[in-house]
Amino acid sequence: MSQRIKDAIRAVPDFPKPGIMFRDISTLLSDPVAFKESLDLFESHFKARGITKIAAIDSRGFLFGGALADRMNLPLVLIRKKGKLPYETISADYELEYGTDSLEIHTDAVSSGDKVAVLDDLLATGGTLAAACKMVEQLGAEVSTVAVLVELSFINGRAKFPGYDILALVDYDSESD
Amino acid sequence: MSQRIKDAIRAVPDFPKPGIMFRDISTLLSDPVAFKESLDLFESHFKARGITKIAAIDSRGFLFGGALADRMNLPLVLIRKKGKLPYETISADYELEYGTDSLEIHTDAVSSGDKVAVLDDLLATGGTLAAACKMVEQLGAEVSTVAVLVELSFINGRAKFPGYDILALVDYDSESD
Repeated sequence: MSQRIKDAIRAVPDFPKPGIMFRDISTLLSDPVAFKESLDLFESHFKARGITKIAAIDSRGFLFGGALADRMNLPLVLIRKKGKLPYETISADYELEYGTDSLEIHTDAVSSGDKVAVLDDLLATGGTLAAACKMVEQLGAEVSTVAVLVELSFINGRAKFPGYDILALVDYDSESD
Repeated sequence: MSQRIKDAIRAVPDFPKPGIMFRDISTLLSDPVAFKESLDLFESHFKARGITKIAAIDSRGFLFGGALADRMNLPLVLIRKKGKLPYETISADYELEYGTDSLEIHTDAVSSGDKVAVLDDLLATGGTLAAACKMVEQLGAEVSTVAVLVELSFINGRAKFPGYDILALVDYDSESD
């Protein structure tokens, strides 16, 4: 848990709807010291896990994924919303508040032998991250860590990942934390 | 123009519809040498222009923006699709093939005295980039460069930017180039 990083994240009440406290990472991104500290923590964890590819989730995962791929000389893999990836894909559904949506990955993006970091900004219900992990494993690769900047632990999305390594740089244990 | 970078971009015919040759940067992102060369070229140009903030456009601009903000110790500003930014925003419309959409920026993201690099993966019609520039200027900052990985020069989106500095790392002068 990094207090420096937590302090750089802005709380915006009632977004996107009343009662929700939105954790706004734009203030972290505009603070180079805090942003680099978050990248340092991801990088150090990925090194310790022997990661071979970074799979970043559309779209805020991209903000961290590009920088980490650059720092670590690792291939960057895109996990995107439906209909965005042009080559041969597989997909996985995840639940929204009303209905479902799906994520896609190129079939040539990862393969057997890869140790993949699945990366996003936020772990809330865990639905998108679980869909991402499912696709990575379907292609024969190992999810070596699930890494997020922010975990909303009061939602307990972590329960969707029994036996997985999870790294969350900061945690909120209530809506008002 | 970098041939090394161009060679790392995959051409996918008939995506998202018949007759369109999609320039797939996922193969560039999975090639650390080519990805880092693209970042080197952006970084060198931004240094020469004395950039103070990097404004990356949702979502593929984020892939490059995060890495450049990290390398250059600069604040990263998000330009996002409508409804994604939680704090006070301004917006600008851009044209789609059918209808319009809009981009938003936080009002505290840039201000007078900032020299901003507006960054995306692609310059095609130039509509989204022009909307991004308009918002940056509306907040009192200067667009010091408009930077893209790929320009589709046969569409001539560049004509929307008279008097602007434009950096495109690779160019395609026809659909079949």
